[in-house]
Amino acid sequence: MMMMLSELGERNIINNIRKIYDYKWVDDDCSYFLEKNKYILITVDSISKSMHIPDHVDPVKVGYFLAAITLSDIAAMGGIPRYFMSALTLPKNMDTKDLKKIEIGIAKCLDKYNTMMIGGDCKEGTELVMSGIGIGEVNKKRILKRDGMKVGDILCVTNYLGKNSAGYYLWKLKNSKDGAEKLLEVEPRIEEGLIISRHGATAAMDLSDGIYSSISQLKKITGLGFLIDFSKIPVSPLAKKVNEELGISIEELTLNYGGDYELLFTIPPEKWITLKKASEKNNFKLTEIGRVKKGRNLLLKDGKEHEIKERGYEHFT
Amino acid sequence: MMMMLSELGERNIINNIRKIYDYKWVDDDCSYFLEKNKYILITVDSISKSMHIPDHVDPVKVGYFLAAITLSDIAAMGGIPRYFMSALTLPKNMDTKDLKKIEIGIAKCLDKYNTMMIGGDCKEGTELVMSGIGIGEVNKKRILKRDGMKVGDILCVTNYLGKNSAGYYLWKLKNSKDGAEKLLEVEPRIEEGLIISRHGATAAMDLSDGIYSSISQLKKITGLGFLIDFSKIPVSPLAKKVNEELGISIEELTLNYGGDYELLFTIPPEKWITLKKASEKNNFKLTEIGRVKKGRNLLLKDGKEHEIKERGYEHFT
Repeated sequence: MMMMLSELGERNIINNIRKIYDYKWVDDDCSYFLEKNKYILITVDSISKSMHIPDHVDPVKVGYFLAAITLSDIAAMGGIPRYFMSALTLPKNMDTKDLKKIEIGIAKCLDKYNTMMIGGDCKEGTELVMSGIGIGEVNKKRILKRDGMKVGDILCVTNYLGKNSAGYYLWKLKNSKDGAEKLLEVEPRIEEGLIISRHGATAAMDLSDGIYSSISQLKKITGLGFLIDFSKIPVSPLAKKVNEELGISIEELTLNYGGDYELLFTIPPEKWITLKKASEKNNFKLTEIGRVKKGRNLLLKDGKEHEIKERGYEHFT
Repeated sequence: MMMMLSELGERNIINNIRKIYDYKWVDDDCSYFLEKNKYILITVDSISKSMHIPDHVDPVKVGYFLAAITLSDIAAMGGIPRYFMSALTLPKNMDTKDLKKIEIGIAKCLDKYNTMMIGGDCKEGTELVMSGIGIGEVNKKRILKRDGMKVGDILCVTNYLGKNSAGYYLWKLKNSKDGAEKLLEVEPRIEEGLIISRHGATAAMDLSDGIYSSISQLKKITGLGFLIDFSKIPVSPLAKKVNEELGISIEELTLNYGGDYELLFTIPPEKWITLKKASEKNNFKLTEIGRVKKGRNLLLKDGKEHEIKERGYEHFT
């Protein structure tokens, strides 16, 4: 009997793969190994034309996106990116100019975050598939994993939420090229990750999958839940606009749909005030949006607590 | 004006990419960076269904092949493989059993070469594309690059040549499934690479592209050429059989077509004898096939010297 991957869904596929290896795979943004007093961080992220690249978007933005989502995983571990490699599978009828623009986009992001391109692989295939490989490092004591949070810790996010999902809906409902490009507009929060880690954060991950999916993943690792205060969510201006004009709920845009690649992290209350000051001094925005608690994940909204059911997008289904 | 990648060819594509980055890309099997007294080696190799995976071959062999060609790059640098990651882009109608078999194949190869799977990425796409990422290490003084050879050095290969290309022709001309699987039958020459490097080899690379293409690449890096003695080539039994039965020349099978993933390396004559003894003690085969010289690449065959023109396969064309 044949069973297709679509019947299994992304998480089951990954869990089935894990079972084959002795190694207990890390539930973190990067893989890592110890070298003297630091961890070498290594991560790979792939994008395919059919699933991740809207038609007609500027290829420079696609390249930037690939590098940014890769480095974002290093940021989420509190690390500094050092090196980057790419594995490209390219259709032979691809326009050479588009490939050049993709590379210019990658180079732009790597320049901005002081990361050196050190090689890669280039092969032929029927679909454009590109993998970014990021290599970074983090002091042994400063690594930010997903499993360190405790009851009472404050849950925070960097910057604003909902811009990328707003872009997605503008693209899908209004066929907006600008929207499609907003969906791809990502910055790895490297400096933020470093400062967060130095100030005693207990766990972190990036928000590629959205908050609902992320807190569900954290709950699976630690058993602990969250109370999220809806009124505290830092809503991006574009998400407000899409909410008003297209009627997509703020909850969908900022909590359910992912793609923001902001950092989600936990920190003990006594350390939060110092970190908040450090963020202001360094000109970046941090917002407290909830607390770590025992039991189920809850959303406080309009004075009532609602149970959060994960509705995040799952590939292959 | 649109120009397609197929008009440019693989090497021009890669050279154009390199120009975009400040970094002078290494012309080696792996990228690497220094950590104290050793190099961390890192390499990525991708395969796509359309270009690299014959229909009906056992998926276990495909997985083994992916891991083996990745680790082969580490062997060619004189390194020890430590970690492996995979980036999978999978079509949703793929059979879950096939994916499991691929993973079993990867695990089999990693087990054999004491390499730990530490994570990866899994995404959806229209074509099956898989990248293997290999991480290894090598003592600072023992790294085997491509640029260290000198005039008078002996040119050698590990094991026998021509098995994989023989498999390719059996598959293509006789529609042989066994042939297709022989094409994928690769072992990374880890122990060989270590011993070769310890005994003072001056340059090495793996033979994924075949000897003609490899010596042409070495000539571009160093300016030096080779004289290859055709009578000394260690021809695999399968290549002899395919030569007799299908009329494909031994030169095509062992020198022009790649896919063997044996190691090609150079070593000063005074060190060759000690290395040869070490290889016999460790039960692997090394063969002297030529010499490093000034000027053009030549093949000594039937008492005459013929100029070697590279005819290796180039992707995208």
